[in-house]
Amino acid sequence: MHVDVLDLYAENFDPRLDRTERDAYYASDTVPAATALLAKQLTQASTLVLVFPTWWFGMPAMLKGWLDRVFFPGLAFEHASNFGPIKPKLTQLRNVVVITTLGSPWWVDCLVMRRPVRRILKKAVFALCAPQAGFSMFSLYAAENPPAAKVRSFTAKISKKLERIA
Amino acid sequence: MHVDVLDLYAENFDPRLDRTERDAYYASDTVPAATALLAKQLTQASTLVLVFPTWWFGMPAMLKGWLDRVFFPGLAFEHASNFGPIKPKLTQLRNVVVITTLGSPWWVDCLVMRRPVRRILKKAVFALCAPQAGFSMFSLYAAENPPAAKVRSFTAKISKKLERIA
Repeated sequence: MHVDVLDLYAENFDPRLDRTERDAYYASDTVPAATALLAKQLTQASTLVLVFPTWWFGMPAMLKGWLDRVFFPGLAFEHASNFGPIKPKLTQLRNVVVITTLGSPWWVDCLVMRRPVRRILKKAVFALCAPQAGFSMFSLYAAENPPAAKVRSFTAKISKKLERIA
Repeated sequence: MHVDVLDLYAENFDPRLDRTERDAYYASDTVPAATALLAKQLTQASTLVLVFPTWWFGMPAMLKGWLDRVFFPGLAFEHASNFGPIKPKLTQLRNVVVITTLGSPWWVDCLVMRRPVRRILKKAVFALCAPQAGFSMFSLYAAENPPAAKVRSFTAKISKKLERIA
């Protein structure tokens, strides 16, 4: 199995979707040159593993910008010309695995916030772009200062999942 | 009334919270030099009006990065040393007004997604940093191609709210 590691910070990725790129968003089927390599990587992956800290119950700006800029119409989904329902285009994707840490305890994320990161990735992004893909999420709560045993059990669960996929 | 307009794109704001800044996040009470001006503006505002498009049911990376980088411990909130409950520090803030557009219809945002942007800003960010502040949100749904009358009624509601505050 081939694994591509994409470290958006190491790549110095710019997460800002600017006016020029936004103006071309629906106007063209052409993927912007600036994100062409990342776009190619996305359309070739059979499994996507997203690893990030949750900040303010959302993705870091860096990862949000990857969604804003790389999940482009014509690439990740097809926007009907009348702004009707979206058609999925990431049809090669089989599995999405999301791994994140949160400072908050689980009940704030689940009961108060209704798991916004999970909801957005599962019910918006991947339900629209790759409804056929399996979706799993691993969240380490109260992650500022976790007991070693909790971290071990967290990583063991992730390893098991990834082994099953591979 | 004095109004400061902050256009993060025009300011060429960098939304990436990087490793150095993150390492200093809890280690220091000093606001990072790179965001000192934005931080000062935030702690002086009595009303905050956030205007942005909602992309993928979240804030654009640009605005998310403003939260990630400027809502710093010691400035926007006080983090207890044992990672206990957060204490608010934006005590001067009286009103938060959020104005956004969404491509999706209202029922997807409300019934399927549970209004993640509203939930995050109201119940996480401002409930923690400024619980005394009033919170209002104006969302223009199906905003790709809205009828003129709908836009007029939307802006009229916003004007009314802002006049009441001012």
